[in-house]
Amino acid sequence: MKEFSNFMDMVKHRQSVRAYSTAMVPGESIERCLEAARLAPSACNAQPWKFIVVNDPDVKNALADATQDRLIPMNHFTKQAPVHIVVVREKANLTSNIGQVMKDKEYPLMDIGIAVEHLCLQAVEEGLGTCIIGWFNEKKVKKLLGIPSSKRAELIITLGFPATEQIREKKRKSMNEITSYNKYS
Amino acid sequence: MKEFSNFMDMVKHRQSVRAYSTAMVPGESIERCLEAARLAPSACNAQPWKFIVVNDPDVKNALADATQDRLIPMNHFTKQAPVHIVVVREKANLTSNIGQVMKDKEYPLMDIGIAVEHLCLQAVEEGLGTCIIGWFNEKKVKKLLGIPSSKRAELIITLGFPATEQIREKKRKSMNEITSYNKYS
Repeated sequence: MKEFSNFMDMVKHRQSVRAYSTAMVPGESIERCLEAARLAPSACNAQPWKFIVVNDPDVKNALADATQDRLIPMNHFTKQAPVHIVVVREKANLTSNIGQVMKDKEYPLMDIGIAVEHLCLQAVEEGLGTCIIGWFNEKKVKKLLGIPSSKRAELIITLGFPATEQIREKKRKSMNEITSYNKYS
Repeated sequence: MKEFSNFMDMVKHRQSVRAYSTAMVPGESIERCLEAARLAPSACNAQPWKFIVVNDPDVKNALADATQDRLIPMNHFTKQAPVHIVVVREKANLTSNIGQVMKDKEYPLMDIGIAVEHLCLQAVEEGLGTCIIGWFNEKKVKKLLGIPSSKRAELIITLGFPATEQIREKKRKSMNEITSYNKYS
């Protein structure tokens, strides 16, 4: 387990990892990542998610193929990662659904963002790297894993030990650009 | 600053806080919460967000009124919280937009979930409590803060010192219910 001086230090060590070592991911690490996601908050506690851990090499390689694109060179690294976790959007509960309709808000997608980041931050502590992938052939993914046609596979998280320990500097908008006090600016 | 033995411990200490003390929130704590959100990952690094910190008591009370409902008794606690942070959805960048259209995915909402949770976890370390609110009169909120009509105010986070240190046990679906290996079940 890695130790961090505080949460901000951990946040700075989380980065999208696109090169993985061949080392196996311990089962207990995967379980702790899932546990962190399980404990995430969600609108009306609906927990509108399922996580499919893909660690069978054949299934994982077929899944990796579905994240790649013949026309656009993307996600070339996915086959390297020994584990993929597919996040399926599940039905929310009644109160969340009422809120969605009355307030025209897609709470489950924000909920999924929260849970996925819990998973990725736990992975940092496990010494693992992740990359959150939203660009993939969803139809192929659903067929491969037997996900019902009515459901959405929203994200895939690649998981494995990073090939390098190097932490890149984050490129982000400035604080002024994204914050203001007491009115929009 | 609170110290936690690890990330999971921190996750267990994050809970929706619906009762606040009257203590002021230090400016540096607010800034660190914003910094944690600023460093969050997003699809194609689009960072499709703005955070409006509302700490002027009059504006904050007017905002709290907009989270309450005459018909349904909700969010009665919001006026107690000395600070509210309104999260506005901003335009994503070109690559994120292309992905959204080609893959029919609302990346910015998942991005906002991630950033908001960074903010809330940093708040835990600051000894602060938060509650993520998705039920409010968006029209009133936008008018109050001068948010352009074309934008969406997606969430409001209440922020303040909790009235009690008590940590409730989390009610969540079981691990079996939300996870499977190599196929959907």
